[in-house]
Amino acid sequence: MAPVRNAKVIFNEIPTGYPEPGKTTVYDASSTIDLETVPLNGGVLVKVLYLSADPYMRGKMRDASIVSYSPAYAIGKPVYGFGVGKIVRSESEQFKAGDIVHTPLLEYAEYSIQTHLQYLDKVNPEPGLSLSVYVGALGMPGKTAYFAWKEFSKAKKGETVFVSGAAGPVGTFVLQLAKSSGLKVIGSAGTEEKVSLVKDLGADVAFNYKTTDTEEVLKSEGPIDIYWDNVGGSTLDAALGNAAFHSRFIECGMISGYNNKEGVHMKNLMNIVARRISMNGFIQSDLSSTWSTEFNRLVPKKLVSGEIKFTEDISKGLEKAGDALLEVQTGKNNGKKVVLVAED
Amino acid sequence: MAPVRNAKVIFNEIPTGYPEPGKTTVYDASSTIDLETVPLNGGVLVKVLYLSADPYMRGKMRDASIVSYSPAYAIGKPVYGFGVGKIVRSESEQFKAGDIVHTPLLEYAEYSIQTHLQYLDKVNPEPGLSLSVYVGALGMPGKTAYFAWKEFSKAKKGETVFVSGAAGPVGTFVLQLAKSSGLKVIGSAGTEEKVSLVKDLGADVAFNYKTTDTEEVLKSEGPIDIYWDNVGGSTLDAALGNAAFHSRFIECGMISGYNNKEGVHMKNLMNIVARRISMNGFIQSDLSSTWSTEFNRLVPKKLVSGEIKFTEDISKGLEKAGDALLEVQTGKNNGKKVVLVAED
Repeated sequence: MAPVRNAKVIFNEIPTGYPEPGKTTVYDASSTIDLETVPLNGGVLVKVLYLSADPYMRGKMRDASIVSYSPAYAIGKPVYGFGVGKIVRSESEQFKAGDIVHTPLLEYAEYSIQTHLQYLDKVNPEPGLSLSVYVGALGMPGKTAYFAWKEFSKAKKGETVFVSGAAGPVGTFVLQLAKSSGLKVIGSAGTEEKVSLVKDLGADVAFNYKTTDTEEVLKSEGPIDIYWDNVGGSTLDAALGNAAFHSRFIECGMISGYNNKEGVHMKNLMNIVARRISMNGFIQSDLSSTWSTEFNRLVPKKLVSGEIKFTEDISKGLEKAGDALLEVQTGKNNGKKVVLVAED
Repeated sequence: MAPVRNAKVIFNEIPTGYPEPGKTTVYDASSTIDLETVPLNGGVLVKVLYLSADPYMRGKMRDASIVSYSPAYAIGKPVYGFGVGKIVRSESEQFKAGDIVHTPLLEYAEYSIQTHLQYLDKVNPEPGLSLSVYVGALGMPGKTAYFAWKEFSKAKKGETVFVSGAAGPVGTFVLQLAKSSGLKVIGSAGTEEKVSLVKDLGADVAFNYKTTDTEEVLKSEGPIDIYWDNVGGSTLDAALGNAAFHSRFIECGMISGYNNKEGVHMKNLMNIVARRISMNGFIQSDLSSTWSTEFNRLVPKKLVSGEIKFTEDISKGLEKAGDALLEVQTGKNNGKKVVLVAED
């Protein structure tokens, strides 16, 4: 069979601010691949179907000498992240052509050779759900929300939780978990459309942090027993200023700091001591051994039944991936950002 | 019997910066008390022997409308804190004249009427130890160190701990616990004399943060697995910048912020997420039910034998109390600051 196109999204240069399509990342349609003869080295050849665009990926667009929880992207190589694909050819006994698989290491490309088989999971698609859900509510964001809520929240009925980034794939999941546990939920987001979504999902208080002062909202609606932090920065400071005694801060992300290195002026860190606050940073894979069985048993059915709602924002075509990566940094996406590379 | 003098240290006005003797606190020798007839309302009359001067007391010198973990001092009333005294007269069956008692509510005065008997503990003095130790290594500072180290450190042999304020009564205790568990200990303090003490107590690395850059020390001697924070501020930021993955931050105090309200510029908060750090604020009484039995069984004997060393810095006379309260804020004290009010 003749070689076919294998377009890729290349990490082109380290950004100082937001990752710019065409500069930070470059769509390159010049490569080809021979699906029948390309060497697999004991691995599998995957046709890429859905790619996940996630905020954490900005952290990988850094100088490789800076240590963090996941390696830096290599300049000149494709970006990679969570994704779902279909096996075209396999040199492993574990997988066969036609299998649907999920991995955190899927290249932003039309085809990807996977040799790190320990990270490759076979997906048994839940009837009634799109495969895209396996990078969203059933993937890293859903697991992030579920695992850490279970592990760290110590939620009690009648308590108050504040969720920043409440309209995102993690935030929407968290606020529904909190509501179903009988908590008062305060959610913030950055557009009126997102605020509406947060309200529709059951938040008691939803506000646009760009037009309403977070500090004022928390002062009148708090104190807060739990803070689910997706944004860090001055929002974290406001949460600390309005924290209840023995409150739990779940440090999921700090997107306010991903695109600038200037730091933030904090006035309320002292409350960590004075109000005996616990703060926990985490990534979901740390908590997987404790919570994934329960997650896999309960969550897919709740998504099908609509008991837990989720929203997706799908960009069609790999050539849109650079824009997708920027949107999740600026907050332009509505719902889980997914890049549809191929239907099947 | 004729009334006797009952000198007091009055909380005179709310300080904006450091608590100034003669301004923030005023020594007032004009009161008298009739030890035989003063009404006790079911409580006890205590002759004050030793008073503890502690950094946390600055937090009580605030506007009473600001909520914190312990109530504000009332203007015009005596300062109070941890102390040891002897019962002169009792209207309670639990206590009798001559009993030595400890309470967190002892007034800065020569005599104090105690009616909150639930906070009053009888002391059975350990032979070989001064009663002053019951406000130091056997009191709140010692319990603070021991309880939280046991609860939060998850210390493993070979790990590295950084202790700020390492020459203080909590810091010296912590660094000895860490050394005895086989950790590498980095300690910081603010004078050469204190740095010597920290070295003498076994720290592997001891430095004067006023003349040596904390960031540089941690960069070459870290990363740190545990940070015992007594100071907060830029030292906390440096610790976050040099934290190992899954490191534990024990948030005991933030004295750098007690005397100014300007806040601090933080550059490394993001590492709470990126390096999956846990941070815990606490006060020792929260952890008492878990750890006090073990503490009382093991620690007094270790102090007598010298296995755990402690240092005291005793101010003689209640009229020195205002200076003592200032010294624990500026760091002029060497060892646990205690005010000796009466020998017996």
